[in-house]
Amino acid sequence: MSETKFAETREELSQGLKAAMRRMPGAVALITTRDPANGQPAGLAASAVIPVSMDPPSMLIAINRSASAHAAIERAGRYCVNLLGTTQTALVGLFSNSALREKRFESAEWAYKDGIPYLPTACSSIFCEIRNTVIHGTHELFIGDVYDVRGGSGDGADPLGWMEGTFAQLGRLEAI
Amino acid sequence: MSETKFAETREELSQGLKAAMRRMPGAVALITTRDPANGQPAGLAASAVIPVSMDPPSMLIAINRSASAHAAIERAGRYCVNLLGTTQTALVGLFSNSALREKRFESAEWAYKDGIPYLPTACSSIFCEIRNTVIHGTHELFIGDVYDVRGGSGDGADPLGWMEGTFAQLGRLEAI
Repeated sequence: MSETKFAETREELSQGLKAAMRRMPGAVALITTRDPANGQPAGLAASAVIPVSMDPPSMLIAINRSASAHAAIERAGRYCVNLLGTTQTALVGLFSNSALREKRFESAEWAYKDGIPYLPTACSSIFCEIRNTVIHGTHELFIGDVYDVRGGSGDGADPLGWMEGTFAQLGRLEAI
Repeated sequence: MSETKFAETREELSQGLKAAMRRMPGAVALITTRDPANGQPAGLAASAVIPVSMDPPSMLIAINRSASAHAAIERAGRYCVNLLGTTQTALVGLFSNSALREKRFESAEWAYKDGIPYLPTACSSIFCEIRNTVIHGTHELFIGDVYDVRGGSGDGADPLGWMEGTFAQLGRLEAI
């Protein structure tokens, strides 16, 4: 067993958490909304997404307050969580690079529900209305009740995962 | 393309969200604490765990308020997120079945830091002090600042994932 130690300084703590998070498996989602300030669609790629409760059905997203889509989500009071499939990795680059912001919704892939963009080819699109928010450090948590959900067409193939700074696919774990 | 529709009733909404969540990849963690009411360790298995912010370093967990460990976490004001590896699936059963509650910390695998149990063989053990809480429906969200983090020994092998109601392992996605 290789011995590892606890963090002793704030810098070690930060580095240790980053290393731990790199190895933590997660989903990959595009969070989308329609900004009521200009009527335009807005969105960003995120992996900090979890279900909160089934009663009421609700989802939480953690969004960096410096992201351009943050204010749009806040103003809209609604967002859609599009859980991506393994064939949709190109979209993540588009939604992670601010220089490409104007091109994000150019593709014919997008459909709209009450003005909010969603991806019919995603594994699922989960529409949420914000019920509570919490600011913590650089991020704001949005807790939204689910008001609609669309099962994807399956064109997005298997659910896309994220681990060790790169895309991942999930396979059934063989019995130990 | 197989056509799928939006949810039309509350029952369809709930079923649709459950189906979407089954396909959402996630990590598998054991959340542990020491209950100050009786000095005993307490814990549960969870997959609703995300990082919140790196400044301050912080993690969020969503815990069912009916879980026996919920009150212990609340009373302790601290918890440890142990991110499991692929060789640690047996522990998940132990921490998911309330009939086995008394046996959870019997194994010599557990170590303790200030009374809080952690798994030195986990991928990582992240110690958090609760800074904020939000109750939403059946669950309570605990937002904790990370005060210590321990990189695991690697004995737990690759990070353990959860998808489609079963354990999963993650592999690098082949370039599309």
